[in-house]
Amino acid sequence: MTLIVQDVLDALAAQASGGTAGCGADQLLFGDAGQAVSGIAVTFIASQQVLEQAVSLGANLVISHEGIFYSHHHDGGRDKAHVGQVHAAKKQYIAEHGLAVYRFHDGLHRQQPDGFMEGLLQELDWEAFVVEHLPAASIVELPSRTGLEIAAHVKARLGIGSLRAVGDLSAQCQRVGLLAGYRGGGALAIPLFERYKLDLILYGEGPEWETPEYVRDAIRFGAAKSLLVLGHLESEQPGMKLLADRLSQLFAAVPVHYVDVDSVFDLV
Amino acid sequence: MTLIVQDVLDALAAQASGGTAGCGADQLLFGDAGQAVSGIAVTFIASQQVLEQAVSLGANLVISHEGIFYSHHHDGGRDKAHVGQVHAAKKQYIAEHGLAVYRFHDGLHRQQPDGFMEGLLQELDWEAFVVEHLPAASIVELPSRTGLEIAAHVKARLGIGSLRAVGDLSAQCQRVGLLAGYRGGGALAIPLFERYKLDLILYGEGPEWETPEYVRDAIRFGAAKSLLVLGHLESEQPGMKLLADRLSQLFAAVPVHYVDVDSVFDLV
Repeated sequence: MTLIVQDVLDALAAQASGGTAGCGADQLLFGDAGQAVSGIAVTFIASQQVLEQAVSLGANLVISHEGIFYSHHHDGGRDKAHVGQVHAAKKQYIAEHGLAVYRFHDGLHRQQPDGFMEGLLQELDWEAFVVEHLPAASIVELPSRTGLEIAAHVKARLGIGSLRAVGDLSAQCQRVGLLAGYRGGGALAIPLFERYKLDLILYGEGPEWETPEYVRDAIRFGAAKSLLVLGHLESEQPGMKLLADRLSQLFAAVPVHYVDVDSVFDLV
Repeated sequence: MTLIVQDVLDALAAQASGGTAGCGADQLLFGDAGQAVSGIAVTFIASQQVLEQAVSLGANLVISHEGIFYSHHHDGGRDKAHVGQVHAAKKQYIAEHGLAVYRFHDGLHRQQPDGFMEGLLQELDWEAFVVEHLPAASIVELPSRTGLEIAAHVKARLGIGSLRAVGDLSAQCQRVGLLAGYRGGGALAIPLFERYKLDLILYGEGPEWETPEYVRDAIRFGAAKSLLVLGHLESEQPGMKLLADRLSQLFAAVPVHYVDVDSVFDLV
């Protein structure tokens, strides 16, 4: 029996706790729900390079966590001001190659535990150390090691060249909080430090003047707290890799590819 | 005649185009408007270390661009969830030392041109190259040089150790867009690339999945565009330095100190 796009969307909805109804971001952006699927490419963000890789792999359904037009909102959001030449060229490429593109954002976050957290914990090999899953964070208790040792482990496991850090990384850390994606803001991260007596937080992305400045002040008052910033992409890619594994078990009839995306930044 | 806090607040309001009425963020957070001013400390963010420096300099009025409790909103914003031990210790330090703390955020942005842009352009020595001031960005046209040469200039002038970059920095750049602070989002920055035919944008901070991903795709389509991310603090400090210079000219009777803040991040 031919696999169609809708079959895959149904499987994704079944993975989200409560389904994907009301998941505003999750939409079939291009293609048709009745279209036959030749292969699936799963990725953090369907950059132009990822789309080209999907085509060369023979996959005509691309599942992207982040929006493909440089905004959480589709087609440039409210004012559509940045719908320009690059946007148009990408749209044309998608149409010419008959690609279906599905944005799967909220649904994976809605899994319990959050699919991104699960992927990140697996990739870090920290599943055995989880003491509590909160809605937007997980608390792990590691064998005692320095912040620098943890940073080295994280870099090696996630393939990250360098991490942005705040605090005293020579201190011993045991209680660690993890937040995937753009969840590093003060309102989420700061109470974790105090309520859960955390030594260290790792998050994907967050405002620079919030949690980092809290850690700077905490250190000044003599508390041995620290922070490692993974990068948004780096913190959420493992979740998409996990999703690709799951889909490949569900759909043996078509190839399912996980397409890794390089860090968007170089350091100069 | 004794200088009081209100005199300084009046001078700051006079610098903002249209005054500071309606500038929600700009408030006297601590201290009293009638308090005599012994000295003024002007800074990007009144970290605990900055407060201690102000005290040791004999300054009892601190002017901070960013909120001093790790949030754009005062006292932790809506849910006040992160009003914890560090917050309390800082509040106690301020009270014990009789400090007045004024948040000056929107007012300096309201200057024409934006005070942060003016400070940044001065610090980069690019004032002579401005071709247009937009409400939230400025366009400069530099003598042709590579993106890497521009990065080296920016690092040296602003004292930044390394910059996050996207794109081909070996390409020649002339038309450059500058955005200070958290103005790197796609809705603001992406249209500038296309409308103003920019080769390069420099911004303070912005969402990682927006403008950086746009530049990555633009490069894939053969456009020679690039991006340099300065850091929020690094992009706005020069504006506070400029403000300190202006205040020291206005108030000869008390010392006005500009207190520089180190980058909040280390690289590990």
